[in-house]
Amino acid sequence: MNLILLEDHECADACVTLTGDRATHLRQVLGVTRGQSVRIGMIDGRYGTGTVEGVDATQVTMQCAFEGEVPPRPRVDVLLALPRPKVMRRLWAQLAALGVGRIMLTNAGRVERDYFDTHILAAATYRALLVEGLQQARDTRLPLVSIHRQFRILVEDHLDELFPSGRRLVADPSSTTSMANAVVDRDQRLLLAIGPEGGWSEFELSLLAAHRFVSVGLGRRTLRVDTACVALLSLAHAALD
Amino acid sequence: MNLILLEDHECADACVTLTGDRATHLRQVLGVTRGQSVRIGMIDGRYGTGTVEGVDATQVTMQCAFEGEVPPRPRVDVLLALPRPKVMRRLWAQLAALGVGRIMLTNAGRVERDYFDTHILAAATYRALLVEGLQQARDTRLPLVSIHRQFRILVEDHLDELFPSGRRLVADPSSTTSMANAVVDRDQRLLLAIGPEGGWSEFELSLLAAHRFVSVGLGRRTLRVDTACVALLSLAHAALD
Repeated sequence: MNLILLEDHECADACVTLTGDRATHLRQVLGVTRGQSVRIGMIDGRYGTGTVEGVDATQVTMQCAFEGEVPPRPRVDVLLALPRPKVMRRLWAQLAALGVGRIMLTNAGRVERDYFDTHILAAATYRALLVEGLQQARDTRLPLVSIHRQFRILVEDHLDELFPSGRRLVADPSSTTSMANAVVDRDQRLLLAIGPEGGWSEFELSLLAAHRFVSVGLGRRTLRVDTACVALLSLAHAALD
Repeated sequence: MNLILLEDHECADACVTLTGDRATHLRQVLGVTRGQSVRIGMIDGRYGTGTVEGVDATQVTMQCAFEGEVPPRPRVDVLLALPRPKVMRRLWAQLAALGVGRIMLTNAGRVERDYFDTHILAAATYRALLVEGLQQARDTRLPLVSIHRQFRILVEDHLDELFPSGRRLVADPSSTTSMANAVVDRDQRLLLAIGPEGGWSEFELSLLAAHRFVSVGLGRRTLRVDTACVALLSLAHAALD
Protein backbone atom coordinates (compact mmCIF):
# COMPACT_ATOMS: atom_id res chain seq x y z
CA MET A 1 0.00 0.00 0.00
CA ASN A 2 2.03 2.91 -1.32
CA LEU A 3 -0.91 5.32 -1.21
CA ILE A 4 -3.95 5.38 1.05
CA LEU A 5 -7.05 5.85 -1.10
CA LEU A 6 -10.17 7.42 0.34
CA GLU A 7 -13.76 7.30 -0.80
CA ASP A 8 -15.49 10.58 -1.51
CA HIS A 9 -17.98 10.14 1.33
CA GLU A 10 -15.29 9.32 3.89
CA CYS A 11 -13.85 12.80 4.31
CA ALA A 12 -16.62 15.27 3.79
CA ASP A 13 -15.25 17.73 6.36
CA ALA A 14 -11.52 17.18 5.59
CA CYS A 15 -11.28 14.67 8.43
CA VAL A 16 -11.31 10.90 7.97
CA THR A 17 -11.43 8.01 10.39
CA LEU A 18 -10.04 4.79 8.93
CA THR A 19 -10.65 1.26 10.14
CA GLY A 20 -9.90 -2.11 8.54
CA ASP A 21 -6.99 -2.77 6.15
CA ARG A 22 -5.93 0.82 5.73
CA ALA A 23 -5.82 1.47 9.49
CA THR A 24 -3.92 -1.78 10.01
CA HIS A 25 -1.41 -0.81 7.34
CA LEU A 26 -0.89 2.66 8.84
CA ARG A 27 -0.46 1.26 12.35
CA GLN A 28 1.46 -1.96 11.74
CA VAL A 29 3.45 -1.39 8.55
CA LEU A 30 4.05 2.37 8.61
CA GLY A 31 3.85 2.63 12.41
CA VAL A 32 2.34 6.11 12.20
CA THR A 33 2.05 8.36 15.24
CA ARG A 34 0.21 11.62 15.90
CA GLY A 35 1.47 14.47 13.73
CA GLN A 36 2.95 12.25 11.02
CA SER A 37 2.08 12.79 7.34
CA VAL A 38 1.11 10.10 4.85
CA ARG A 39 0.38 10.17 1.14
CA ILE A 40 -3.31 9.95 0.39
CA GLY A 41 -5.55 10.19 -2.63
CA MET A 42 -9.25 10.47 -3.31
CA ILE A 43 -10.62 7.71 -5.54
CA ASP A 44 -10.95 9.29 -9.00
CA GLY A 45 -9.71 12.53 -7.46
CA ARG A 46 -6.63 14.39 -6.37
CA TYR A 47 -3.58 13.41 -4.37
CA GLY A 48 -3.00 14.87 -0.95
CA THR A 49 -1.52 14.57 2.49
CA GLY A 50 -3.08 13.04 5.56
CA THR A 51 -1.87 14.34 8.91
CA VAL A 52 -2.44 11.79 11.65
CA GLU A 53 -4.49 13.16 14.52
CA GLY A 54 -5.08 10.01 16.50
CA VAL A 55 -4.22 6.31 16.51
CA ASP A 56 -5.79 3.61 18.62
CA ALA A 57 -6.11 -0.17 18.48
CA THR A 58 -8.77 -0.17 15.76
CA GLN A 59 -8.66 3.15 13.94
CA VAL A 60 -6.59 6.02 12.62
CA THR A 61 -7.93 9.57 12.34
CA MET A 62 -6.37 11.99 9.85
CA GLN A 63 -6.81 15.56 8.68
CA CYS A 64 -6.82 15.56 4.86
CA ALA A 65 -5.54 18.17 2.44
CA PHE A 66 -5.70 17.69 -1.33
CA GLU A 67 -3.82 19.60 -3.97
CA GLY A 68 -3.02 19.77 -7.67
CA GLU A 69 -5.05 18.36 -10.49
CA VAL A 70 -6.89 15.06 -10.75
CA PRO A 71 -4.37 12.79 -12.54
CA PRO A 72 -5.32 11.73 -16.08
CA ARG A 73 -6.85 8.32 -16.69
CA PRO A 74 -4.26 5.79 -17.99
CA ARG A 75 -4.20 5.85 -21.78
CA VAL A 76 -4.54 2.11 -22.31
CA ASP A 77 -7.83 0.20 -22.25
CA VAL A 78 -8.29 -3.57 -22.43
CA LEU A 79 -10.90 -5.75 -24.05
CA LEU A 80 -10.33 -9.10 -22.39
CA ALA A 81 -11.98 -12.45 -23.05
CA LEU A 82 -13.03 -13.46 -19.53
CA PRO A 83 -10.42 -15.81 -18.05
CA ARG A 84 -11.31 -18.49 -15.51
CA PRO A 85 -12.30 -17.03 -12.13
CA LYS A 86 -9.08 -17.93 -10.31
CA VAL A 87 -7.02 -16.08 -12.93
CA MET A 88 -9.43 -13.13 -13.08
CA ARG A 89 -9.24 -12.76 -9.30
CA ARG A 90 -5.50 -12.18 -9.53
CA LEU A 91 -5.75 -9.97 -12.61
CA TRP A 92 -7.97 -7.21 -11.22
CA ALA A 93 -5.30 -5.69 -8.99
CA GLN A 94 -2.57 -6.27 -11.57
CA LEU A 95 -4.54 -4.47 -14.29
CA ALA A 96 -5.20 -1.51 -12.00
CA ALA A 97 -1.56 -1.42 -10.89
CA LEU A 98 -0.24 -1.50 -14.46
CA GLY A 99 -2.68 1.25 -15.42
CA VAL A 100 -5.82 0.83 -17.50
CA GLY A 101 -8.54 3.36 -18.20
CA ARG A 102 -11.24 0.84 -18.96
CA ILE A 103 -11.67 -2.91 -18.71
CA MET A 104 -14.20 -4.60 -21.00
CA LEU A 105 -14.70 -8.26 -20.17
CA THR A 106 -16.29 -10.29 -22.89
CA ASN A 107 -17.50 -13.72 -23.76
CA ALA A 108 -15.84 -15.52 -26.68
CA GLY A 109 -16.05 -18.91 -28.34
CA ARG A 110 -13.37 -20.37 -26.09
CA VAL A 111 -14.67 -18.84 -22.83
CA GLU A 112 -16.65 -21.21 -20.61
CA ARG A 113 -20.14 -19.81 -20.03
CA ASP A 114 -20.09 -20.47 -16.31
CA TYR A 115 -17.14 -18.12 -15.83
CA PHE A 116 -19.73 -15.35 -15.85
CA ASP A 117 -21.56 -16.75 -12.83
CA THR A 118 -18.89 -15.88 -10.32
CA HIS A 119 -18.65 -13.40 -7.48
CA ILE A 120 -15.40 -12.19 -9.05
CA LEU A 121 -17.61 -10.23 -11.43
CA ALA A 122 -19.61 -8.63 -8.63
CA ALA A 123 -18.77 -4.93 -8.42
CA ALA A 124 -18.23 -5.09 -4.66
CA THR A 125 -15.60 -7.78 -5.13
CA TYR A 126 -13.67 -6.39 -8.05
CA ARG A 127 -13.79 -2.77 -6.93
CA ALA A 128 -11.87 -3.65 -3.76
CA LEU A 129 -9.27 -5.53 -5.83
CA LEU A 130 -8.92 -2.62 -8.27
CA VAL A 131 -8.44 -0.20 -5.35
CA GLU A 132 -5.77 -2.54 -3.97
CA GLY A 133 -3.91 -2.28 -7.30
CA LEU A 134 -4.23 1.51 -7.36
CA GLN A 135 -2.89 1.78 -3.82
CA GLN A 136 0.07 -0.36 -4.88
CA ALA A 137 0.80 1.77 -7.96
CA ARG A 138 -0.03 5.16 -6.38
CA ASP A 139 -2.84 6.02 -8.77
CA THR A 140 -6.26 7.41 -7.95
CA ARG A 141 -8.09 6.67 -11.22
CA LEU A 142 -10.34 3.66 -10.84
CA PRO A 143 -10.66 1.72 -14.12
CA LEU A 144 -14.13 1.72 -15.64
CA VAL A 145 -15.49 -1.82 -15.95
CA SER A 146 -18.10 -3.29 -18.24
CA ILE A 147 -19.09 -6.92 -18.72
CA HIS A 148 -20.34 -8.20 -22.05
CA ARG A 149 -21.94 -11.58 -22.52
CA GLN A 150 -22.13 -11.25 -26.29
CA PHE A 151 -18.90 -10.54 -28.09
CA ARG A 152 -20.49 -9.62 -31.39
CA ILE A 153 -22.89 -7.12 -29.84
CA LEU A 154 -20.04 -5.56 -27.91
CA VAL A 155 -17.91 -5.11 -31.02
CA GLU A 156 -20.67 -4.10 -33.41
CA ASP A 157 -22.94 -2.02 -31.19
CA HIS A 158 -21.08 -0.74 -28.13
CA LEU A 159 -17.41 -0.44 -28.90
CA ASP A 160 -17.57 2.88 -30.75
CA GLU A 161 -19.09 4.43 -27.66
CA LEU A 162 -16.75 2.72 -25.18
CA PHE A 163 -13.64 3.45 -27.24
CA PRO A 164 -14.56 6.24 -29.64
CA SER A 165 -11.11 7.17 -30.90
CA GLY A 166 -7.62 5.78 -30.72
CA ARG A 167 -5.61 2.79 -31.87
CA ARG A 168 -7.20 -0.66 -31.60
CA LEU A 169 -4.81 -3.59 -31.29
CA VAL A 170 -5.47 -7.29 -31.00
CA ALA A 171 -2.82 -9.58 -29.55
CA ASP A 172 -2.26 -12.30 -32.12
CA PRO A 173 0.45 -14.94 -31.71
CA SER A 174 0.84 -15.18 -35.49
CA SER A 175 1.64 -11.46 -35.85
CA THR A 176 5.22 -10.31 -36.21
CA THR A 177 4.40 -6.64 -35.59
CA SER A 178 5.94 -5.47 -32.32
CA MET A 179 4.09 -3.20 -29.92
CA ALA A 180 6.58 -0.40 -30.61
CA ASN A 181 5.76 -0.63 -34.33
CA ALA A 182 2.03 -1.04 -33.78
CA VAL A 183 1.80 2.22 -31.82
CA VAL A 184 1.98 4.76 -34.60
CA ASP A 185 0.92 7.83 -32.66
CA ARG A 186 1.98 8.27 -29.05
CA ASP A 187 -0.80 10.75 -28.37
CA GLN A 188 -3.57 8.29 -29.17
CA ARG A 189 -5.35 6.11 -26.63
CA LEU A 190 -4.73 2.38 -27.07
CA LEU A 191 -7.21 -0.46 -26.82
CA LEU A 192 -5.71 -3.92 -26.41
CA ALA A 193 -7.87 -6.94 -27.20
CA ILE A 194 -6.61 -10.06 -25.44
CA GLY A 195 -8.18 -13.42 -26.24
CA PRO A 196 -8.94 -16.50 -24.16
CA GLU A 197 -6.57 -19.42 -23.51
CA GLY A 198 -6.64 -21.10 -26.91
CA GLY A 199 -7.10 -17.81 -28.72
CA TRP A 200 -9.83 -15.96 -30.53
CA SER A 201 -11.76 -17.92 -33.17
CA GLU A 202 -11.41 -17.11 -36.85
CA PHE A 203 -14.80 -15.40 -36.77
CA GLU A 204 -13.79 -13.28 -33.79
CA LEU A 205 -10.50 -12.25 -35.40
CA SER A 206 -12.33 -11.26 -38.61
CA LEU A 207 -14.89 -9.25 -36.66
CA LEU A 208 -12.12 -7.43 -34.81
CA ALA A 209 -10.25 -6.76 -38.05
CA ALA A 210 -13.45 -5.39 -39.60
CA HIS A 211 -13.69 -2.99 -36.67
CA ARG A 212 -10.23 -1.47 -37.08
CA PHE A 213 -8.23 -3.81 -34.83
CA VAL A 214 -4.65 -4.28 -36.00
CA SER A 215 -2.64 -7.34 -34.99
CA VAL A 216 0.28 -7.11 -32.60
CA GLY A 217 2.56 -9.99 -31.66
CA LEU A 218 4.40 -10.92 -28.49
CA GLY A 219 7.20 -12.92 -30.06
CA ARG A 220 7.43 -16.64 -30.60
CA ARG A 221 6.62 -17.68 -27.04
CA THR A 222 2.99 -18.50 -26.25
CA LEU A 223 2.08 -17.12 -22.83
CA ARG A 224 -0.78 -17.84 -20.48
CA VAL A 225 -3.45 -15.15 -20.53
CA ASP A 226 -2.50 -13.58 -17.19
CA THR A 227 1.19 -13.38 -18.11
CA ALA A 228 0.28 -12.06 -21.56
CA CYS A 229 -1.91 -9.31 -20.03
CA VAL A 230 0.93 -8.03 -17.88
CA ALA A 231 3.41 -8.29 -20.75
CA LEU A 232 1.17 -6.50 -23.25
CA LEU A 233 0.21 -3.70 -20.86
CA SER A 234 3.86 -3.10 -19.96
CA LEU A 235 4.84 -2.94 -23.61
CA ALA A 236 1.88 -0.68 -24.41
CA HIS A 237 2.79 1.82 -21.70
CA ALA A 238 6.45 1.72 -22.72
CA ALA A 239 5.45 2.39 -26.34
CA LEU A 240 3.30 5.38 -25.32
CA ASP A 241 5.84 6.92 -22.91
CA MET B 1 0.77 -27.46 -22.97
CA ASN B 2 1.80 -26.33 -26.43
CA LEU B 3 4.77 -28.68 -26.60
CA ILE B 4 5.32 -32.07 -24.97
CA LEU B 5 8.74 -32.09 -23.34
CA LEU B 6 10.60 -35.34 -22.81
CA GLU B 7 13.42 -36.23 -20.50
CA ASP B 8 16.58 -37.61 -22.04
CA HIS B 9 16.18 -41.00 -20.35
CA GLU B 10 12.56 -41.38 -21.48
CA CYS B 11 13.20 -42.11 -25.14
CA ALA B 12 16.49 -43.90 -25.43
CA ASP B 13 15.35 -46.02 -28.37
CA ALA B 14 13.23 -43.33 -30.11
CA CYS B 15 10.10 -44.67 -28.45
CA VAL B 16 8.46 -43.10 -25.41
CA THR B 17 5.60 -44.18 -23.19
CA LEU B 18 3.98 -41.27 -21.38
CA THR B 19 1.82 -41.42 -18.27
CA GLY B 20 0.60 -38.68 -15.93
CA ASP B 21 -0.07 -35.06 -16.99
CA ARG B 22 1.38 -35.34 -20.47
CA ALA B 23 -0.63 -38.47 -21.29
CA THR B 24 -3.78 -36.89 -19.87
CA HIS B 25 -3.21 -33.78 -21.99
CA LEU B 26 -2.66 -35.82 -25.15
CA ARG B 27 -5.75 -37.94 -24.51
CA GLN B 28 -8.21 -35.45 -23.08
CA VAL B 29 -7.21 -32.06 -24.51
CA LEU B 30 -5.70 -33.00 -27.87
CA GLY B 31 -7.73 -36.21 -28.20
CA VAL B 32 -4.91 -37.94 -30.06
CA THR B 33 -5.40 -41.22 -31.87
CA ARG B 34 -3.01 -43.74 -33.42
CA GLY B 35 -1.01 -42.27 -36.31
CA GLN B 36 -1.41 -38.67 -35.25
CA SER B 37 1.61 -36.35 -34.92
CA VAL B 38 2.32 -34.01 -32.02
CA ARG B 39 5.04 -31.45 -31.40
CA ILE B 40 7.63 -32.68 -28.96
CA GLY B 41 10.97 -31.49 -27.61
CA MET B 42 13.79 -32.94 -25.56
CA ILE B 43 14.56 -30.96 -22.40
CA ASP B 44 17.64 -28.89 -23.23
CA GLY B 45 17.61 -30.52 -26.64
CA ARG B 46 16.03 -30.42 -30.05
CA TYR B 47 12.45 -30.13 -31.25
CA GLY B 48 10.78 -33.02 -32.96
CA THR B 49 7.65 -34.91 -33.85
CA GLY B 50 5.98 -37.67 -31.91
CA THR B 51 3.88 -40.12 -33.88
CA VAL B 52 1.27 -41.77 -31.70
CA GLU B 53 1.50 -45.57 -31.73
CA GLY B 54 -0.95 -46.41 -29.02
CA VAL B 55 -3.37 -44.79 -26.56
CA ASP B 56 -5.07 -46.41 -23.61
CA ALA B 57 -6.71 -45.25 -20.39
CA THR B 58 -3.44 -44.42 -18.63
CA GLN B 59 -0.72 -44.01 -21.21
CA VAL B 60 0.27 -42.83 -24.67
CA THR B 61 3.07 -44.43 -26.68
CA MET B 62 4.87 -42.44 -29.36
CA GLN B 63 7.67 -42.87 -31.87
CA CYS B 64 9.97 -39.82 -31.61
CA ALA B 65 11.99 -38.08 -34.29
CA PHE B 66 14.09 -35.01 -33.57
CA GLU B 67 15.51 -32.55 -36.06
CA GLY B 68 17.32 -29.25 -36.43
CA GLU B 69 19.56 -27.59 -33.89
CA VAL B 70 19.14 -27.26 -30.15
CA PRO B 71 17.52 -23.81 -29.73
CA PRO B 72 19.68 -21.15 -28.09
CA ARG B 73 19.25 -20.34 -24.41
CA PRO B 74 17.16 -17.17 -23.86
CA ARG B 75 19.42 -14.14 -23.68
CA VAL B 76 18.03 -12.68 -20.46
CA ASP B 77 19.04 -13.82 -16.97
CA VAL B 78 17.51 -12.71 -13.67
CA LEU B 79 18.96 -12.06 -10.27
CA LEU B 80 15.90 -12.02 -8.04
CA ALA B 81 15.59 -11.28 -4.34
CA LEU B 82 13.62 -14.29 -3.14
CA PRO B 83 9.92 -13.38 -2.93
CA ARG B 84 7.59 -15.02 -0.44
CA PRO B 85 6.90 -18.69 -1.23
CA LYS B 86 3.37 -18.20 -2.56
CA VAL B 87 4.62 -15.65 -5.09
CA MET B 88 7.70 -17.69 -6.00
CA ARG B 89 5.52 -20.73 -6.64
CA ARG B 90 3.64 -18.82 -9.34
CA LEU B 91 6.77 -17.20 -10.74
CA TRP B 92 8.71 -20.33 -11.71
CA ALA B 93 6.50 -21.22 -14.66
CA GLN B 94 6.08 -17.58 -15.67
CA LEU B 95 9.84 -16.99 -15.75
CA ALA B 96 10.39 -20.10 -17.85
CA ALA B 97 7.54 -19.14 -20.19
CA LEU B 98 8.83 -15.59 -20.68
CA GLY B 99 12.32 -16.95 -21.35
CA VAL B 100 15.28 -16.78 -19.00
CA GLY B 101 18.65 -18.41 -19.34
CA ARG B 102 19.50 -18.40 -15.67
CA ILE B 103 17.68 -17.62 -12.43
CA MET B 104 19.74 -16.56 -9.42
CA LEU B 105 17.68 -16.31 -6.25
CA THR B 106 19.26 -14.31 -3.49
CA ASN B 107 18.78 -13.15 0.03
CA ALA B 108 18.58 -9.39 0.66
CA GLY B 109 17.96 -7.09 3.62
CA ARG B 110 14.21 -7.05 3.00
CA VAL B 111 13.85 -10.80 2.35
CA GLU B 112 12.52 -12.84 5.28
CA ARG B 113 15.06 -15.53 6.19
CA ASP B 114 12.45 -18.27 6.47
CA TYR B 115 11.54 -17.87 2.79
CA PHE B 116 14.58 -20.07 2.13
CA ASP B 117 13.18 -22.97 4.15
CA THR B 118 10.46 -23.87 1.69
CA HIS B 119 9.88 -26.81 -0.62
CA ILE B 120 9.44 -24.28 -3.43
CA LEU B 121 13.22 -24.13 -3.52
CA ALA B 122 13.61 -27.91 -3.77
CA ALA B 123 14.85 -28.83 -7.24
CA ALA B 124 12.18 -31.50 -7.68
CA THR B 125 9.46 -28.90 -7.08
CA TYR B 126 10.73 -26.03 -9.16
CA ARG B 127 11.99 -28.15 -12.05
CA ALA B 128 8.45 -29.41 -12.69
CA LEU B 129 7.14 -25.82 -12.63
CA LEU B 130 9.86 -24.63 -15.00
CA VAL B 131 9.06 -27.48 -17.40
CA GLU B 132 5.39 -26.46 -17.24
CA GLY B 133 6.39 -22.94 -18.32
CA LEU B 134 8.56 -24.26 -21.16
CA GLN B 135 5.74 -26.48 -22.41
CA GLN B 136 3.46 -23.43 -22.41
CA ALA B 137 5.96 -21.29 -24.35
CA ARG B 138 7.25 -24.06 -26.64
CA ASP B 139 10.86 -23.87 -25.50
CA THR B 140 13.18 -26.72 -24.61
CA ARG B 141 15.89 -24.83 -22.70
CA LEU B 142 15.50 -25.31 -18.98
CA PRO B 143 16.68 -22.24 -17.03
CA LEU B 144 19.73 -22.80 -14.85
CA VAL B 145 18.93 -22.12 -11.19
CA SER B 146 21.17 -21.17 -8.30
CA ILE B 147 20.20 -20.15 -4.77
CA HIS B 148 22.33 -17.72 -2.78
CA ARG B 149 21.85 -17.09 0.91
CA GLN B 150 24.40 -14.28 0.99
CA PHE B 151 23.86 -11.41 -1.39
CA ARG B 152 27.29 -9.89 -0.95
CA ILE B 153 29.12 -13.16 -1.60
CA LEU B 154 26.99 -13.74 -4.69
CA VAL B 155 27.78 -10.31 -6.12
CA GLU B 156 31.44 -10.13 -5.10
CA ASP B 157 32.57 -13.73 -5.56
CA HIS B 158 30.24 -15.63 -7.89
CA LEU B 159 28.60 -13.22 -10.29
CA ASP B 160 31.49 -12.89 -12.73
CA GLU B 161 31.37 -16.63 -13.25
CA LEU B 162 27.56 -16.86 -13.44
CA PHE B 163 27.27 -13.85 -15.75
CA PRO B 164 30.69 -13.31 -17.28
CA SER B 165 29.81 -10.83 -19.99
CA GLY B 166 26.84 -8.74 -20.98
CA ARG B 167 24.77 -5.86 -19.73
CA ARG B 168 23.82 -5.77 -16.05
CA LEU B 169 20.67 -3.86 -15.16
CA VAL B 170 19.01 -3.25 -11.83
CA ALA B 171 15.33 -2.31 -11.69
CA ASP B 172 15.14 0.89 -9.69
CA PRO B 173 11.87 2.80 -9.23
CA SER B 174 13.77 6.08 -9.03
CA SER B 175 15.40 5.60 -12.45
CA THR B 176 14.01 7.36 -15.49
CA THR B 177 16.01 5.26 -17.96
CA SER B 178 13.71 3.07 -20.03
CA MET B 179 14.56 -0.51 -20.89
CA ALA B 180 14.87 0.43 -24.56
CA ASN B 181 17.49 3.04 -23.66
CA ALA B 182 19.25 0.83 -21.12
CA VAL B 183 19.88 -1.89 -23.71
CA VAL B 184 22.75 -0.39 -25.67
CA ASP B 185 23.81 -3.47 -27.61
CA ARG B 186 21.22 -5.95 -28.83
CA ASP B 187 23.78 -8.70 -29.20
CA GLN B 188 24.71 -8.71 -25.52
CA ARG B 189 23.16 -10.93 -22.88
CA LEU B 190 21.14 -9.07 -20.25
CA LEU B 191 21.06 -9.65 -16.52
CA LEU B 192 18.12 -8.09 -14.69
CA ALA B 193 18.38 -7.61 -10.93
CA ILE B 194 14.95 -7.38 -9.31
CA GLY B 195 14.66 -6.47 -5.63
CA PRO B 196 12.32 -7.55 -2.86
CA GLU B 197 8.99 -5.90 -2.00
CA GLY B 198 10.20 -2.69 -0.37
CA GLY B 199 13.25 -2.55 -2.62
CA TRP B 200 16.98 -3.10 -2.33
CA SER B 201 18.74 -1.35 0.57
CA GLU B 202 21.16 1.52 -0.06
CA PHE B 203 24.05 -0.85 0.61
CA GLU B 204 22.72 -3.38 -1.88
CA LEU B 205 22.20 -0.73 -4.57
CA SER B 206 25.76 0.56 -4.05
CA LEU B 207 27.18 -2.93 -4.24
CA LEU B 208 25.30 -3.58 -7.49
CA ALA B 209 26.44 -0.24 -8.92
CA ALA B 210 30.03 -1.10 -7.99
CA HIS B 211 29.65 -4.30 -9.96
CA ARG B 212 28.54 -2.70 -13.22
CA PHE B 213 24.78 -2.72 -12.70
CA VAL B 214 23.04 0.20 -14.40
CA SER B 215 19.62 1.40 -13.23
CA VAL B 216 16.52 0.93 -15.32
CA GLY B 217 13.06 2.26 -14.45
CA LEU B 218 9.57 0.96 -15.01
CA GLY B 219 7.76 4.29 -15.01
CA ARG B 220 6.05 6.02 -12.13
CA ARG B 221 3.87 3.11 -11.06
CA THR B 222 5.20 0.88 -8.28
CA LEU B 223 4.42 -2.75 -9.05
CA ARG B 224 4.41 -5.86 -6.92
CA VAL B 225 7.45 -8.05 -7.48
CA ASP B 226 5.67 -10.72 -9.50
CA THR B 227 4.05 -8.17 -11.81
CA ALA B 228 7.36 -6.30 -12.10
CA CYS B 229 9.19 -9.51 -13.08
CA VAL B 230 6.81 -10.17 -15.95
CA ALA B 231 6.88 -6.53 -17.04
CA LEU B 232 10.68 -6.27 -16.95
CA LEU B 233 11.26 -9.55 -18.78
CA SER B 234 8.78 -8.60 -21.49
CA LEU B 235 10.45 -5.24 -21.97
CA ALA B 236 13.92 -6.82 -21.95
CA HIS B 237 13.00 -9.33 -24.67
CA ALA B 238 11.32 -6.61 -26.71
CA ALA B 239 14.44 -4.45 -26.41
CA LEU B 240 16.69 -7.31 -27.56
CA ASP B 241 14.48 -8.42 -30.47
